[in-house]
Amino acid sequence: MPTPPPDHAPTKDSDAGGGFVVLDAMGGDSGPAVVVAGALVAWREFGVPVVLVGRAEVVERELGRQGGVGELDVRHADEVVPMAEAVARSVARRGASLMVGCELARREGAPFVSAGSTGAVVACAVRAFGRRESVLRPALAVALPTAAGSTVLVDAGGTADPSAEMLAQFATLGAEYARGVLGVRDPSVGLLSVGSEPGKGNRLVRDAARLLPDMPVRFHGNVEGHDVLAGTVDVVVTDGFTGNVVLKNIEGCVRTTLGMVARAGLAETGPLDEVARLYAADTHGGAALLGLDGTVVVAHGSSGPAAIARACVVARDLAVRGAGV
Amino acid sequence: MPTPPPDHAPTKDSDAGGGFVVLDAMGGDSGPAVVVAGALVAWREFGVPVVLVGRAEVVERELGRQGGVGELDVRHADEVVPMAEAVARSVARRGASLMVGCELARREGAPFVSAGSTGAVVACAVRAFGRRESVLRPALAVALPTAAGSTVLVDAGGTADPSAEMLAQFATLGAEYARGVLGVRDPSVGLLSVGSEPGKGNRLVRDAARLLPDMPVRFHGNVEGHDVLAGTVDVVVTDGFTGNVVLKNIEGCVRTTLGMVARAGLAETGPLDEVARLYAADTHGGAALLGLDGTVVVAHGSSGPAAIARACVVARDLAVRGAGV
Repeated sequence: MPTPPPDHAPTKDSDAGGGFVVLDAMGGDSGPAVVVAGALVAWREFGVPVVLVGRAEVVERELGRQGGVGELDVRHADEVVPMAEAVARSVARRGASLMVGCELARREGAPFVSAGSTGAVVACAVRAFGRRESVLRPALAVALPTAAGSTVLVDAGGTADPSAEMLAQFATLGAEYARGVLGVRDPSVGLLSVGSEPGKGNRLVRDAARLLPDMPVRFHGNVEGHDVLAGTVDVVVTDGFTGNVVLKNIEGCVRTTLGMVARAGLAETGPLDEVARLYAADTHGGAALLGLDGTVVVAHGSSGPAAIARACVVARDLAVRGAGV
Repeated sequence: MPTPPPDHAPTKDSDAGGGFVVLDAMGGDSGPAVVVAGALVAWREFGVPVVLVGRAEVVERELGRQGGVGELDVRHADEVVPMAEAVARSVARRGASLMVGCELARREGAPFVSAGSTGAVVACAVRAFGRRESVLRPALAVALPTAAGSTVLVDAGGTADPSAEMLAQFATLGAEYARGVLGVRDPSVGLLSVGSEPGKGNRLVRDAARLLPDMPVRFHGNVEGHDVLAGTVDVVVTDGFTGNVVLKNIEGCVRTTLGMVARAGLAETGPLDEVARLYAADTHGGAALLGLDGTVVVAHGSSGPAAIARACVVARDLAVRGAGV
């Protein structure tokens, strides 16, 4: 077990692993008990120091209940953003754990993690960190396992109605992520559409397909739904609506397929669960919000402690390795 | 083996199975050899009489090569629509197998089948058959197997950029299909989005969500990507772009998942192939084009003989059972 962190707030770069992570203790569907449990896993098992932001009395009580008093730092925030609240209202809650956490992370140059809601996290993070110069809109990136490695899906839900210019820019952000985080030297980028021919797609995709050859990425052309997990390209670019639907469709499809295999008695459920875990929210842990002046990871709203911990590890790694992401 | 069909063109309702099917012999990626093979399977194994429309000398030669001279009727069409051709040009080819086939099917009240391209089939079918009264745009419906039965995905690629009014109408068409073809008495309809709360989604979905409670369907509310195969609702409504991406994403995801199971040595590949087949284009065979004054089935461009045969059987069944679809 690592030595306990100091009982004052950690400072930037205080840890060999690349500094602490700021975690919204009140985010997610399951409440602070789960988030605090995840933070303790991140610290105890992965050596990531976590600063928990939320209602101090609630968070301290959870730390006490879980035997973690003094292990993690807590910063008080009066308010909470309800998961179903409209994004515009969430951003206005300056005293909520989400905004207080974002501001703390920005001041300290630390990565920030929250389990949602996604819309509120994106809006608050943009407000607090600001967009990198020339970035029109941030995008969420998720690395999906393929037979041969990983494919980055971008945008997985940051911007539901992007313009063609934004979509073309997501290609650049996704390629940076593939280079910086996955170590792909010259990532190929595909535009998700309904046919591989250039003219195929909806209006948005047809417009973006005309812009992409001029972007500073290795543009492969259009790819289709079956290409996402086939490893056809390193980065699959799509709008945040389609990307979010595809991401959740994959989760559900893996579950249904393995369920059919198990029910047919073709394999033991234990090992099948290992395959399921590859595509479960608990494994990829979180989506990186690309294009901001800071590192932000959005964990799934239904995250359990393992997913919260994983999101903290990913955020720490992104902050360390992901120069320019 | 059924008795050979008459060597003159079959007439409407000449067969107990519900009349003949008109098949575009020149459609699909693989050419007439595969389509003719599929037509022979449809007739020999399923008793569906097929009229093949295409270049007579090519089709007759294939029938000869496959030992099927005289078994199926052939109608000559001078031209062919290339798979990658722009839709506007395809519709202008009045002498192509696609348009000649559509016109023949309309005149004879017979169902029509083609393996694409999808865009060209939709455009030519709309031109030839016309839309049912008050139908704004046709939509493609595919029945996907779930653990408990089937879910109808609509639109699976008919209209890439529908309006909210069109999307709301797809709900009615999908529910008709679920009732008429799958026998679901009071089908529930979900709107595919990025969150289950009413306000979630892109502009199109948020607008459609406001219209759907007033449509004559049992509207469940929003569903998400993981609901498509979970059997959450009987009908999943989405735009043709997202629907096509989701459909192909499922095909790819099932393949990838089963590949991982096989590579991990968890099960024999033979039985796994059975599961894969459930979601392969070869099994569902085709998508029904809803909203027209006639029955049209679009087979996958990569269809093999089994998929072509299956599409013919589905078209025959739709024409017999699918009153109002």
